[in-house]
Amino acid sequence: GAAARAWAWALARVAAAWSAVAGFAGKVWRIGADDPRRAVHGLKVGLALALVSVFYYTRPLYDGVGGAAMWAIMTVVVVFEYTVGGSVYKCFNRAVATASAGVLALGVHWVAGKTGGFEPYILTGSLFLLAAAATFSRFIPTVKARFDYGVTIFILTYSLVAVSGYRVDELAALAQQRLSTIAIGIFMCLAVAVFVCPVWAGQELHLLTTRNMDKLADALEGCVEDYFAGGPAQAKSGGYRCVLNSKASEDAQANLARWEPPHGRFGFRHPYAQYGKVGASMRACAYCVEALGSCAGAEAQAPEHAKRLLRGACARVAARCARVLREASRSVATMTASRALDFAAADMDTAVHELQGDMRSLPSTLAAELAAETSLMDTMPVFTVA
Amino acid sequence: GAAARAWAWALARVAAAWSAVAGFAGKVWRIGADDPRRAVHGLKVGLALALVSVFYYTRPLYDGVGGAAMWAIMTVVVVFEYTVGGSVYKCFNRAVATASAGVLALGVHWVAGKTGGFEPYILTGSLFLLAAAATFSRFIPTVKARFDYGVTIFILTYSLVAVSGYRVDELAALAQQRLSTIAIGIFMCLAVAVFVCPVWAGQELHLLTTRNMDKLADALEGCVEDYFAGGPAQAKSGGYRCVLNSKASEDAQANLARWEPPHGRFGFRHPYAQYGKVGASMRACAYCVEALGSCAGAEAQAPEHAKRLLRGACARVAARCARVLREASRSVATMTASRALDFAAADMDTAVHELQGDMRSLPSTLAAELAAETSLMDTMPVFTVA
Repeated sequence: GAAARAWAWALARVAAAWSAVAGFAGKVWRIGADDPRRAVHGLKVGLALALVSVFYYTRPLYDGVGGAAMWAIMTVVVVFEYTVGGSVYKCFNRAVATASAGVLALGVHWVAGKTGGFEPYILTGSLFLLAAAATFSRFIPTVKARFDYGVTIFILTYSLVAVSGYRVDELAALAQQRLSTIAIGIFMCLAVAVFVCPVWAGQELHLLTTRNMDKLADALEGCVEDYFAGGPAQAKSGGYRCVLNSKASEDAQANLARWEPPHGRFGFRHPYAQYGKVGASMRACAYCVEALGSCAGAEAQAPEHAKRLLRGACARVAARCARVLREASRSVATMTASRALDFAAADMDTAVHELQGDMRSLPSTLAAELAAETSLMDTMPVFTVA
Repeated sequence: GAAARAWAWALARVAAAWSAVAGFAGKVWRIGADDPRRAVHGLKVGLALALVSVFYYTRPLYDGVGGAAMWAIMTVVVVFEYTVGGSVYKCFNRAVATASAGVLALGVHWVAGKTGGFEPYILTGSLFLLAAAATFSRFIPTVKARFDYGVTIFILTYSLVAVSGYRVDELAALAQQRLSTIAIGIFMCLAVAVFVCPVWAGQELHLLTTRNMDKLADALEGCVEDYFAGGPAQAKSGGYRCVLNSKASEDAQANLARWEPPHGRFGFRHPYAQYGKVGASMRACAYCVEALGSCAGAEAQAPEHAKRLLRGACARVAARCARVLREASRSVATMTASRALDFAAADMDTAVHELQGDMRSLPSTLAAELAAETSLMDTMPVFTVA
């Protein structure tokens, strides 16, 4: 009766809830399984925090730094990033901004102290002006890219020191204590980030670039095949889509990679800016592939006889373009300028000229040739990286 | 002699340094002049900080919240963002994360207190596990998009309370004090953000979308003109480039806009996700324009007689595409579904069919027609926004 129905309903609800939870757990598990370094990153943060909290629990160490041990914990929490470059960026910004803002605040505080009763007005006025100027400076692109976090910390430290200075007498001692605890936090954080399974932003950028190039080569071949096969688009030719919107992540990683110390094959002053140029060329190439892809999917197709005539030449161009891209990818991956790339590019040129010859007799599918030209230009900046 | 040369050299150095400084100052000035709201944003941050610091200087208020007034300052500095949505996002995250982490830490602390000597081990262990789990959870896309800042604050608060709890006796009083000061900071911050020249993320997103559509329309016309003129690309057709890489900023703004209270024509549950779809269609359109642009710049051109034949039809298609885009832009700007858009789209369809008819007699410039098709599809999601 009603009880049985209620029971069945409750069971169904529980089953639905369970499957939702299981689905979510599966998704989370896949996030970790796809890239186990993510799970390791979580453990690293836990480790760094546990190490810092040891400072708090062991009496002698605690007596050394006093109640300011809190600042070491705070530093570790906000400074620890996924990549080494990110951690170094934040550590550097935090240290420099804290020190400079502290010194400035002490100076202003000393001056304000001389004026007697005007102290609060001078302090609040300077806080207003400095905060406004520093906040505005974040809109300058260079500052935004390299010192965004530093500006926040600068305002934070200045306001804390300037305002609390009105109450606390031993201001210099406080500032010194805070700096030393921040130094402890930064040291812990960098040690864990660099020595326990480090994730280098430079290496990530490098991998992203070569992987995208290979995907582009696959997509180029797949697209031309699709076009002449006349069927629906296949999975192979869809992999390039992530190249289209890769600019933001490439820029961010190149920015962080600049902060990293030399490691492995990535020396001092590794030309990270070149990756941005290669990325821009790859995106230009991806736009062409996108246009080609819509050609393949368009309703209005070139007449059959034209297709038959150009099929061989087009396929040749696509195959050689793809070879150039794969050679370029290998050349970037091994960081060497290979002769094979030159040969492949020359081959591609020949194929493009053949296609142009064929086309002169019958104008059609300009786009295929464009892709060839762009991917040719694509190979140029690669040499400078290697 | 030598003195004169040294003097000239010194003068030249000073002049060079002066021009460098003047150049930088000019750049900074232009950043502010381009969008005066940036300078206003700086002043707003200064104002909010000055207001909070008043809490510190006025005795009665200071006695009310105690030394924890520092937390109000800290909150304002880290929570104040350029857009209202950004500020609300951070305020909400900070408040909820602080409260939940505080309660959890007090609970764990109470349990650990019952076990006697094991207290530090339990606290450090729980800190390690929670920090690792919370850090890992940031890799889940939903958490990353909506609660990234909250996770940081959760770890921060938990570690501060759990660790400092070992020393401080009146833990609950401390936690309550901290919460109330954070509430003061959040209140100040939101009041200034909403009532003093507010910058709404939703409005920014709206403007970005309509502006990009207009640019795209200009570029489409410019491109086809360039192609048939045969000259070098003109300035008019370059404006679409910012559309190509707009995904990151669109996503970020749509994310923040979701946090905003209803304002002006942006009601409760305004369909911000639709802007993302419109943006994706616009990018697809921009890829076509990019391909068209490279057609215009390519060495190998279609033969003159073919160009002459198709010129009229192509120009017509481009003009009608541009009109559809402009209509769509106006329709989005006014948030109304206009009949004019339907007519414009029908006109464009006719023009596309005419072009296809012309092309059947002479296959060429497939790409122009593709752009037309894509911009047709582009208009579809617009209706759902209006």
